[in-house]
Amino acid sequence: MVVELTTLNPASGEPAISHIRAALARSLHVITANKGPIAHAYAALAQDARRAGVEFRFESTVMDGAPVFNMVRHNLPGCKIRGFTGVLNSTTNVVIDAMRSGRTLDEGVEEAQRIGIAEADASFDIEGWDAAAKTAALANVLFDARVTPLDVGRRGIGRLTPERVLELKEQGKTIRLVSRARVTPNGTKLRVRAEVLDESDVLAAVHGTSSLLLLDTDLMGTVGTVEINPGVHQTAYGVFSDLVDIAKAL
Amino acid sequence: MVVELTTLNPASGEPAISHIRAALARSLHVITANKGPIAHAYAALAQDARRAGVEFRFESTVMDGAPVFNMVRHNLPGCKIRGFTGVLNSTTNVVIDAMRSGRTLDEGVEEAQRIGIAEADASFDIEGWDAAAKTAALANVLFDARVTPLDVGRRGIGRLTPERVLELKEQGKTIRLVSRARVTPNGTKLRVRAEVLDESDVLAAVHGTSSLLLLDTDLMGTVGTVEINPGVHQTAYGVFSDLVDIAKAL
Repeated sequence: MVVELTTLNPASGEPAISHIRAALARSLHVITANKGPIAHAYAALAQDARRAGVEFRFESTVMDGAPVFNMVRHNLPGCKIRGFTGVLNSTTNVVIDAMRSGRTLDEGVEEAQRIGIAEADASFDIEGWDAAAKTAALANVLFDARVTPLDVGRRGIGRLTPERVLELKEQGKTIRLVSRARVTPNGTKLRVRAEVLDESDVLAAVHGTSSLLLLDTDLMGTVGTVEINPGVHQTAYGVFSDLVDIAKAL
Repeated sequence: MVVELTTLNPASGEPAISHIRAALARSLHVITANKGPIAHAYAALAQDARRAGVEFRFESTVMDGAPVFNMVRHNLPGCKIRGFTGVLNSTTNVVIDAMRSGRTLDEGVEEAQRIGIAEADASFDIEGWDAAAKTAALANVLFDARVTPLDVGRRGIGRLTPERVLELKEQGKTIRLVSRARVTPNGTKLRVRAEVLDESDVLAAVHGTSSLLLLDTDLMGTVGTVEINPGVHQTAYGVFSDLVDIAKAL
């Protein structure tokens, strides 16, 4: 068994992809908390795992240890996932809520860095790359979409101003960086966009490090997972839950 | 296998409890969508099932087929559930949202009856008995609480007025009938109450027939399930998912 938790280049998913490939080639089960390999190379890695007759798990890559992939695996038998909607990036939540209290984008980014959720180069979050990587990872696993983050139509919050956020607040509205995916006869449509939402929208109710994913299914309607204010322990728990799940399947 | 879906007396859980007891006595697996037996007699029925060496499943009793009991069973290994918070009654959501648009409680109840979610005697919903039954069922299964709906501190929305709801709206607040449970050294604390919430609260974002349950866990923090605008098909799906789960375990 290999548990792959190395730091990686988010633009390529390396060296995590090579680590995982090497482990699968040795017929070792693999658990990773890195979304890069799932966003860039899921189909090939899943095929390697099947050929080797081993398990490849990655619950922590989206929403930490909250059940996403394992929910679909265990709790939605016979359901086809037709699309999803999610608020999956914490830094933009923190920045938008900071703007609602009159602060600037930069001050919001500093707050996100202080609480340890934003990268030193926050543009990865602000321009929607982090959300695009999660969107691609979900689409690759849930729809066999065979996409990368570059295939996600992406528009971040970089040009959003406190004035605009406060103007929306007056109208009972707010902004969230929303990931949307939909399976269509012409392929998978994927996008990440700063969307204007009513404050009463469940997507607007996601604050701070919380996140929410709604799955659009054929049999079970719209059903989802929510995670409130997780920390690093909840990422570790996702790895642990994969470990237990593999042990049960042996 | 017996699938128990009969109409029942919510105050006693009968005749569903007797049906289930009779099936378990014949060593048949049982699936029910009736919350009465889980709210009134879970510990005894679960013991009967264990003795008979059969499965007893009830995913649809809370939040239809959205993963609640099966999420805890399959996706939260090693987690201890320390409490929960939920918005689990649809009729009160509809009534409160009606009041926010200036209508009366009775007009809200009529709307809930028209869309088919309220009983002919809506007081079961309005006075919080439905939410109390779901709260007791969750506590019985998740904490082995051995309670009935009568053990849930209960205060419904019967005395709520449109004036009060509109006054709260002016302040950016709203009301939800919230179920809360907490395991303490002195036993399980359970309550159902109309709570004043900020509009930005995730509990306030539950509208119509949607529902939300947040579990407070030791290892995975606060994690939950959300279901958006389900209908009767989603109740049926919960029975189906239990059926598949039992078949897998055989």
